[in-house]
Amino acid sequence: MTYPFSVAAAAALLVLSVPAGAEAVPVPSPGEIAAAAPAGDWVAIPASDLLVMTLAPDAKGKARRVVIQLMPAPFSQGWIGNIRKLAAAHWWDGAGVYRVQDNYVAQWGDASDEKPLPDDMATVPESDYIARRLFAADDHEAITVVGRDTYAEMATFYRGWPVALHSDFTGASDAWPVHCYGAVGVARNLSPDTGTGAELYAVIGHAPRQLDRNIAVVGRVIEGIEHLSSLPRGSGALGFYGDAAERVPILSVRIASDLPAVDRPVLEYLSTESDSFARYAEARANRRDPFFIAPAGGADICNIPVPVRPVAAR
Amino acid sequence: MTYPFSVAAAAALLVLSVPAGAEAVPVPSPGEIAAAAPAGDWVAIPASDLLVMTLAPDAKGKARRVVIQLMPAPFSQGWIGNIRKLAAAHWWDGAGVYRVQDNYVAQWGDASDEKPLPDDMATVPESDYIARRLFAADDHEAITVVGRDTYAEMATFYRGWPVALHSDFTGASDAWPVHCYGAVGVARNLSPDTGTGAELYAVIGHAPRQLDRNIAVVGRVIEGIEHLSSLPRGSGALGFYGDAAERVPILSVRIASDLPAVDRPVLEYLSTESDSFARYAEARANRRDPFFIAPAGGADICNIPVPVRPVAAR
Repeated sequence: MTYPFSVAAAAALLVLSVPAGAEAVPVPSPGEIAAAAPAGDWVAIPASDLLVMTLAPDAKGKARRVVIQLMPAPFSQGWIGNIRKLAAAHWWDGAGVYRVQDNYVAQWGDASDEKPLPDDMATVPESDYIARRLFAADDHEAITVVGRDTYAEMATFYRGWPVALHSDFTGASDAWPVHCYGAVGVARNLSPDTGTGAELYAVIGHAPRQLDRNIAVVGRVIEGIEHLSSLPRGSGALGFYGDAAERVPILSVRIASDLPAVDRPVLEYLSTESDSFARYAEARANRRDPFFIAPAGGADICNIPVPVRPVAAR
Repeated sequence: MTYPFSVAAAAALLVLSVPAGAEAVPVPSPGEIAAAAPAGDWVAIPASDLLVMTLAPDAKGKARRVVIQLMPAPFSQGWIGNIRKLAAAHWWDGAGVYRVQDNYVAQWGDASDEKPLPDDMATVPESDYIARRLFAADDHEAITVVGRDTYAEMATFYRGWPVALHSDFTGASDAWPVHCYGAVGVARNLSPDTGTGAELYAVIGHAPRQLDRNIAVVGRVIEGIEHLSSLPRGSGALGFYGDAAERVPILSVRIASDLPAVDRPVLEYLSTESDSFARYAEARANRRDPFFIAPAGGADICNIPVPVRPVAAR
């Protein structure tokens, strides 16, 4: 199942782009392949699936906006329902980023752990870390780009999201979202606690895949990750800020559809079912653009970030 | 060759640590395993293999020191020889960090590209990106911890360093250093240029393994990576700072053995040939300490960082 037709075809096209005797045409980079994808290969992200976190301006007075895309069903919907309630209640307004651990996570919420939650929060079971039988045995043909994975039988993309898979005895596959750079997860206490969604973190280092199936992944930062990744690291244990004054205040967190239209981020992602994405993924695994002399022959799932871009004003 | 004896034995010990009927004893975390390793499992890092870069103090006046461990032979020694000459010539003093690209690299050197180099710099061939036949066919037993790798036949550790391998037709293996978080590499122009070592970068995001065998890896940051990873991202293309005033001045770069004894960092790493490291690596791949409910069953080579610690004053 490694590199089925769509990817193999794309590779052939790349080779054919330099006909014998012609001047060598530089092979496009993955970014150039994505940029050249037809409009129909891009998928608009609904404003209702975007969480917009506005941090206090930085020391130079520059605005800091972090935009998070929430995961689609069937993943993590119990926690995401809580997150929607917390945003609607303006629960994070006045909270802060209270932990930044190098090569790991930036975490935010209520550092005091005393702020009352809305009273209709769901308690989500650990079984919801995994989507059971997401791919039936005869669906496997529909998986367009797959790769070897060090942490699971394989890794692929599902509706724009990187996921890992294990097959059950019938050949159907369980799937779960993976912790790549920028992934947003739900902090929790010891099992059986699964967290509510009030305390969230974003990955700011090498993919901590050991957290997969141990913590709920609810989304990914698709704009403004630098406002989290470039924060000073906390000097306390696990990167917690030792002094409350070091915390970065959160001015507001809203679902984008609750913002005035003019303030809504308008973004789209490259469909992971498209031929363009298959070519992009193949090029991430085998760089042949001018800088490279030795294509790697593979890429881990977290080294194939799904292209996201702002939609130009129309 | 996956998980040979030393790792399997360690796993058995972990299971045996909870005898039937006894109160469950928490399984140690990877960090706890490393911390409990006997003194003999730690290897002192010679001061002559440490590159100490002192950046200008931060906005609050706090000192910023970055310590880089240089790779041992047979890897990248041509470039490392150049780096030793550049440090001896105080070439980087007054240079700066001029590029910080999110989830990729922080890069430093002479942004003007006009500063004359010492005149005895080596030009290193591309073939030196790889150490040929590092492991003979009958040496393979000596590889203590190996894992599946998405980018090569396998990945392992060699004298404290993560490396990837490909076997040749005799069964001997070529090996090359890999781009993990904190890895330091030699910036270059298009092939056949291989760079001199004057312009260096450190990885500050998910392992960009596509650079392996395409750029020389010369070392890794083992102290102070946060002084690079938390810098503001550059707003120019590829994360270059658009304004020279944004650059972070480098006060000095020295080989530690050229510093007064009192200023030398004294650090040691956990021998990757030790049983302690095998247990540590196994625990990174299968977390059973109290927070975790689902051990991953694997870890990529860059998610098994080699433990490094300061040597306590004696």
